[in-house]
Amino acid sequence: MALIVQKYGGTSVGSIGHIEHVAEKVATTRNQGHKVVVVVSAMSGETNRLMGMANEIQGQIAHGRELDVLLSTGEQVTIALLAMALQRRECAAVSSTGAQLDIRTDNKFNKARIKSIDAVRLKRSLDAGYVVVVAGFQGIDSEGNITTLGRGGSDTTAVALAAAVKADECQIYTDVDGVYTTDPRVEPNARRLARITFEEMLEMASLGSKVLQIRAVEFAGKYDVPIRVLSTFAEGPGTLITFEEDSMEDPLVSGIAFNRDEAQLTVKGVPDQPGVAAHILGPIADENIEVDMIVQNVGSDGTTDFTFTVHRNDYTKGMKVIDNTLKNIGGGQVGGDPNIVKLSLVGVGMRSHAGIASRMFTALAQEKINIRMISTSEIKISVVIEEKYLELGVRVLHEAFELDQEIGVEDTQ
Amino acid sequence: MALIVQKYGGTSVGSIGHIEHVAEKVATTRNQGHKVVVVVSAMSGETNRLMGMANEIQGQIAHGRELDVLLSTGEQVTIALLAMALQRRECAAVSSTGAQLDIRTDNKFNKARIKSIDAVRLKRSLDAGYVVVVAGFQGIDSEGNITTLGRGGSDTTAVALAAAVKADECQIYTDVDGVYTTDPRVEPNARRLARITFEEMLEMASLGSKVLQIRAVEFAGKYDVPIRVLSTFAEGPGTLITFEEDSMEDPLVSGIAFNRDEAQLTVKGVPDQPGVAAHILGPIADENIEVDMIVQNVGSDGTTDFTFTVHRNDYTKGMKVIDNTLKNIGGGQVGGDPNIVKLSLVGVGMRSHAGIASRMFTALAQEKINIRMISTSEIKISVVIEEKYLELGVRVLHEAFELDQEIGVEDTQ
Repeated sequence: MALIVQKYGGTSVGSIGHIEHVAEKVATTRNQGHKVVVVVSAMSGETNRLMGMANEIQGQIAHGRELDVLLSTGEQVTIALLAMALQRRECAAVSSTGAQLDIRTDNKFNKARIKSIDAVRLKRSLDAGYVVVVAGFQGIDSEGNITTLGRGGSDTTAVALAAAVKADECQIYTDVDGVYTTDPRVEPNARRLARITFEEMLEMASLGSKVLQIRAVEFAGKYDVPIRVLSTFAEGPGTLITFEEDSMEDPLVSGIAFNRDEAQLTVKGVPDQPGVAAHILGPIADENIEVDMIVQNVGSDGTTDFTFTVHRNDYTKGMKVIDNTLKNIGGGQVGGDPNIVKLSLVGVGMRSHAGIASRMFTALAQEKINIRMISTSEIKISVVIEEKYLELGVRVLHEAFELDQEIGVEDTQ
Repeated sequence: MALIVQKYGGTSVGSIGHIEHVAEKVATTRNQGHKVVVVVSAMSGETNRLMGMANEIQGQIAHGRELDVLLSTGEQVTIALLAMALQRRECAAVSSTGAQLDIRTDNKFNKARIKSIDAVRLKRSLDAGYVVVVAGFQGIDSEGNITTLGRGGSDTTAVALAAAVKADECQIYTDVDGVYTTDPRVEPNARRLARITFEEMLEMASLGSKVLQIRAVEFAGKYDVPIRVLSTFAEGPGTLITFEEDSMEDPLVSGIAFNRDEAQLTVKGVPDQPGVAAHILGPIADENIEVDMIVQNVGSDGTTDFTFTVHRNDYTKGMKVIDNTLKNIGGGQVGGDPNIVKLSLVGVGMRSHAGIASRMFTALAQEKINIRMISTSEIKISVVIEEKYLELGVRVLHEAFELDQEIGVEDTQ
């Protein structure tokens, strides 16, 4: 008998029919003799509906204390309906809001962070034989105000609960059946990974493979919670997210992530002296423009070039900010390109293997795909290329690193 | 400076536009220097939407713990939106769920009763200058489970809060501008009453003038809370519900109530012996059929007749139940009529004035309206007549008791 936390996202509980389906899955797990905690999101569309009303009243993107009071109702509706559906199946179930489980957060409304959970109360309900259906995404601060964790926060709730009760596994049910080597819509040979490490998952998530919320992954890594990503709608073992030491045989590269939402800004001929990066990026940060990749090469002739990427929506604004900065510095020109994509190879195996980078660059060169920027970390290599080469680049790399080939031991759940 | 509790029902907050309108009214009251607690219902349609989903899952009229978790979200949405709309008007406001204000109830889910309220917390927020926007209809039991007070319970919440903080007035905003002598759709000369006593209001409410929830009126009477019924959409003083001793000059009759939803069941020729009423009504109660009027006249020849009214939806079922009962008793026949209405004169003045009944019966007789049943209490006289005479009966009595004439002192707010 195991203790399992299951999390179902908005699409998985998007209608009464879907909720009935989830109830079947939960009841099946319970009937196998496991103790089950279920974390659910708001029914798909509900959060947007509520945000729409709030925006209309506040006359801007809604925020603040009352937004959390409003949004937290979305998950509360789902827990009640799912608990009813379980009871209808003779499966003892009780719902719990974030407040009722004392999921304590800081007081940062709209983006709170979990500080503690009343595991005693949760365990008591489990020991009494109940499936506990918990509202994801929400908690209360020390003064009893309702807080929310920000969008996607239900994943974090699930992982935090799993950590609090020392669950054997935290199962994240979603509309994909696992983590893939890359987006199957781009590369039909993309393969579901049986396992992936937390670190790889972090890189994959932040690079646009939006299967799991990044904070949830960090949390899971910190508290050693094994996560499994599964499909609500199809049977299968999904992908287990594990710690590096668990992997029998690491592949060199686990997957290819990409991000179409970026734009590139380049500053040329600025004085190559200490503080120039701060001079240029300071005003960008002041305008709340988030910067992703930053590349500065060794300068020459007393000047240097400096390139970074921002969200495509911030491209024009970023250009103007730099223009102003250059006037103050007295030199340099700004250029850029909004039609670029970032492509990344991710894999813990890279750490101990040389030659991954050159193999990557060679593969791209053979298809005449020009690399604009390169940036590396311990377990990933990212390149910026022209947007039109995205699909070709993904396929070329998928083949070059034989990602369609199974390596290591398939996990048998 | 007064302390005022205002309650706005579902129609009053039925859209974003309506919520903005309510915010204007609340802000105006606040700006006049008053301390304000606002109690709101779910936006109109929302409770039905949620009930619909619950019924679909439970496969019957939904009930139980989880229904309250579900339904309580309706009011929670409204408090958040109204607090936002107030803040937008530079009116400091904070929302509060039933749980946050520790509105403690018993543990009868779906129809809980309020036991206590954390007035200290409420007063602290008021003293800090906030308008406190409270979710009506909901509370928590001693174990922290969410409970609801049953439909219309927001009135009760408002009165209970007013009692807890010793408010100067509890204003119930609705879509009518006060309590009328009778339904203006039936009698165009119906007049808004400046005042009505709690006892009269109780009789009016239970007889079908559905302005205020009956439990709220009982509560108000018990705790001496002055209630004023007002329109959300039209300016005016409304109707003040007071204690009898406050009235300067009681009219004999305050109003005429009626109920079209009843049906009459008659049992004839049953043995006139002790226990016969219980024999007949016991099985009716066992089938959850609610009985309103009960009339039994003095018998003759060792048998007696026995008549009572039930909700029209229960007419056929009630008939069958009695048929069975009579077989067991071994005698009597059952008859009935689903096309009847109950018409009632209500007024505290009746207590000290004879002749009201005969004036009523005479007025009806002059129009050849036959009276089927008569039942009286201290402050009302009810008759059952054929449904087709309803409108005529109301108009005749309205004129006979000069209800279109103002009596007593008009309240000037």
